Amino acid sequence: MNYPGKVKKSYNKYTNYSNRGMDLEDLINQSNEYYLEENIAIVHKKPTPITISEVKYGTKERIITKAYFRTPSTLDYNGIYRGKYIDFDAKETLNKTSFPLQNIHEHQLEHMKRIIEHGGISFLIISINSEVYLLDGNIILDYIKNTNKKSIPYKFIKENGIQIEKKIRPRLDYIKAIDNLYL
Amino acid sequence: MNYPGKVKKSYNKYTNYSNRGMDLEDLINQSNEYYLEENIAIVHKKPTPITISEVKYGTKERIITKAYFRTPSTLDYNGIYRGKYIDFDAKETLNKTSFPLQNIHEHQLEHMKRIIEHGGISFLIISINSEVYLLDGNIILDYIKNTNKKSIPYKFIKENGIQIEKKIRPRLDYIKAIDNLYL
Repeated sequence: MNYPGKVKKSYNKYTNYSNRGMDLEDLINQSNEYYLEENIAIVHKKPTPITISEVKYGTKERIITKAYFRTPSTLDYNGIYRGKYIDFDAKETLNKTSFPLQNIHEHQLEHMKRIIEHGGISFLIISINSEVYLLDGNIILDYIKNTNKKSIPYKFIKENGIQIEKKIRPRLDYIKAIDNLYL
Repeated sequence: MNYPGKVKKSYNKYTNYSNRGMDLEDLINQSNEYYLEENIAIVHKKPTPITISEVKYGTKERIITKAYFRTPSTLDYNGIYRGKYIDFDAKETLNKTSFPLQNIHEHQLEHMKRIIEHGGISFLIISINSEVYLLDGNIILDYIKNTNKKSIPYKFIKENGIQIEKKIRPRLDYIKAIDNLYL
């Protein structure tokens, strides 16, 4: 929730990282808080998938003392907007000419395809060249199928994606991009 | 995925625990695998929410060496079925006369309310007296609002919920209950 300490911390984080285009996740999380507060959409980031191996009982609470990261089989964010199921991931690259596909797992692409088949909205939010784009899942899947390439050129993203506006509230108005593209 | 080792393990687990009504989560996870394989619905359990405090770099992978459990602010399961957003949690009780509400957090009830307002389907799957019921979110929220009680009587659940059939595949056919109740 939006208590002062947290907002300040997030704000500082944003200020520190903005120049090198990092912290896309934080911007999206802040946008999701805004959408929730304003009752516009309900979107949450899924917790990091882990396998817990050891837990100890502390004096006040249980503490995980050994756990491993798991490869995610779904996308990081999902929720509901105007009655529609939405499901997406956020990726950023420092590469200026193309977005490498290596950081999207095969299972995640499969998940994206299924979601679309079942009537959901699925896409990637891609941060490249200090710009942020919403690129539709179908366009991504078709691109991979048709080209068999390992990266998506910046030019392709610019031409086929919807640029997401950076604002104060919300930080990244990706819901507006959804309105433009899908609704 | 459905490789033999895992199924066997889960099956044994089910056999061991079935008499005391445990392992509801495992039954739902197995049902979700079935729905996914049969392309009926896409529902995943969210990973356990944790705050990672320390990570070490092993020879092969990163190992979490200190992490804490966080209180969930959403429900454990969400996904899409026939184009509809669905969002629910699974709870079991050994209490035979009523289901105590203490293990549903205030934030989770708030989440449930929001999901319904936005056009999603939200409910609890409740295991009580060796039976499993789907109890609609609106009914739960109304019950709490109207009675201010700290538990829901078994009789109320039986009368107002939809009993979920236990089968081989899927283990718990909660999608059938959704069909009956909502679609």
